[in-house]
Amino acid sequence: MIEKPLIFVTNDDGITAPGLRTLISVMNEIGNVVVVAPDRPQSAKGHAITINSTLECNKVQIDSGPQIEYSCSGTPADCVKLGINEILNKKPDICVSGINHGSNSSINVIYSGTMSAAIEAAVQGIPSVGFSLLDYSWKANFNIFRDFVSKITLAALKNKFPTGNALNVNFPKITKAEIKGIKICRQAKAFWIERFDKRINPQNKEYYWLTGEFIDEDNGHDTDEWALKNGYISIVPVNFDMTDYKNISTIKDWNL
Amino acid sequence: MIEKPLIFVTNDDGITAPGLRTLISVMNEIGNVVVVAPDRPQSAKGHAITINSTLECNKVQIDSGPQIEYSCSGTPADCVKLGINEILNKKPDICVSGINHGSNSSINVIYSGTMSAAIEAAVQGIPSVGFSLLDYSWKANFNIFRDFVSKITLAALKNKFPTGNALNVNFPKITKAEIKGIKICRQAKAFWIERFDKRINPQNKEYYWLTGEFIDEDNGHDTDEWALKNGYISIVPVNFDMTDYKNISTIKDWNL
Repeated sequence: MIEKPLIFVTNDDGITAPGLRTLISVMNEIGNVVVVAPDRPQSAKGHAITINSTLECNKVQIDSGPQIEYSCSGTPADCVKLGINEILNKKPDICVSGINHGSNSSINVIYSGTMSAAIEAAVQGIPSVGFSLLDYSWKANFNIFRDFVSKITLAALKNKFPTGNALNVNFPKITKAEIKGIKICRQAKAFWIERFDKRINPQNKEYYWLTGEFIDEDNGHDTDEWALKNGYISIVPVNFDMTDYKNISTIKDWNL
Repeated sequence: MIEKPLIFVTNDDGITAPGLRTLISVMNEIGNVVVVAPDRPQSAKGHAITINSTLECNKVQIDSGPQIEYSCSGTPADCVKLGINEILNKKPDICVSGINHGSNSSINVIYSGTMSAAIEAAVQGIPSVGFSLLDYSWKANFNIFRDFVSKITLAALKNKFPTGNALNVNFPKITKAEIKGIKICRQAKAFWIERFDKRINPQNKEYYWLTGEFIDEDNGHDTDEWALKNGYISIVPVNFDMTDYKNISTIKDWNL
């Protein structure tokens, strides 16, 4: 009998999120699943980690599946660090994160808790995939993407996974029949134009809500934004080495 | 008369941190300074932003310098977004972040609030530099690096700044006489080996403290870790495009 892969599952929307429950259900068909997920929503927490306070991690059972689950008081990156180094007694074969309620394409990768968890697993030397659906609703239909989640995870387990990489997978908000396939892409040069909504509280004090508009100024047909707009699932291989190698010589020319 | 540059200053250790106060004092010699910094320590907050709650931003005067200062309830990335889009009425010529109390070399760049602020400024299209000193003490001697902070900032203002870049500058914990110069580097492949210190609280419940050991497994002489260990100030150009371009073809070969 071939041993089943050990799959570590996490997310940033919290342990009860429907996107996570779908991901766990798909992973149960592939391997032995251990979940360490935040006990509350941790969206847009980036790669925050908890260094100046304590963490709690409690065994829980949210549904009747065979997975082993822990609810953690920390950020998504904390869940990965704690899960890999304290909860599991061996290195998982893969880490999957999500399925996020909302897009993590283009620049959103740097704000995303879902992708930070996946990137933290990459830092820990583990193949990892973050999944996101371009639908912020708690009632989003994740089920139509089950086959793709399974296919991508099996491919990541079967093939040699590039060192230091995490795959950023985004699903467009379309019907199953409309899905044209999968595109391997680069991160689009798309950004938020921020606007702050200034209000006055009952104590007559100013406060702000961050709001904004997402602008894609990238004309390339090889970007995640292009793929998603054109009916494809996008996959961007991302790496935690943030060095801009092509500009090392530019800065050297400053003769500091 | 030539107009002075508009300099935006922030950090992650909070508005009263000595590292920030030194940075403001150096910047006051170069240009017109506006500070928007967190009202409390925000170390290791990564690229977290505040989307599910409100932000406050209050004009303050911490010392007698000519800078205009605001204390903000948000993360370092929030400070940059709010500062650039709401507080300032024109785009700053440069954003400087720090001087951080502690290292942001190698993998620490992804956890760092200091560097996330600098990277957020890069996202906003502004030349930016994050400064960090390898000394976690509140009483660290930042003054010996004043000339280097000034020189690097002036060079960033004078030269064509690479699009999408933020410079990650780290100062070794050495005396002024021991400084050999500045090296332009790549991010070292160095990591934390995490260990969780498990304790029992007075209510008999388990909790954890994140701790760990920093391991540099990179033998290159072109890394930030090498530079810092050998008496140099390190500068790594970092970019918010996290695509691992060289592995796009690897993933394409999976034929998904």
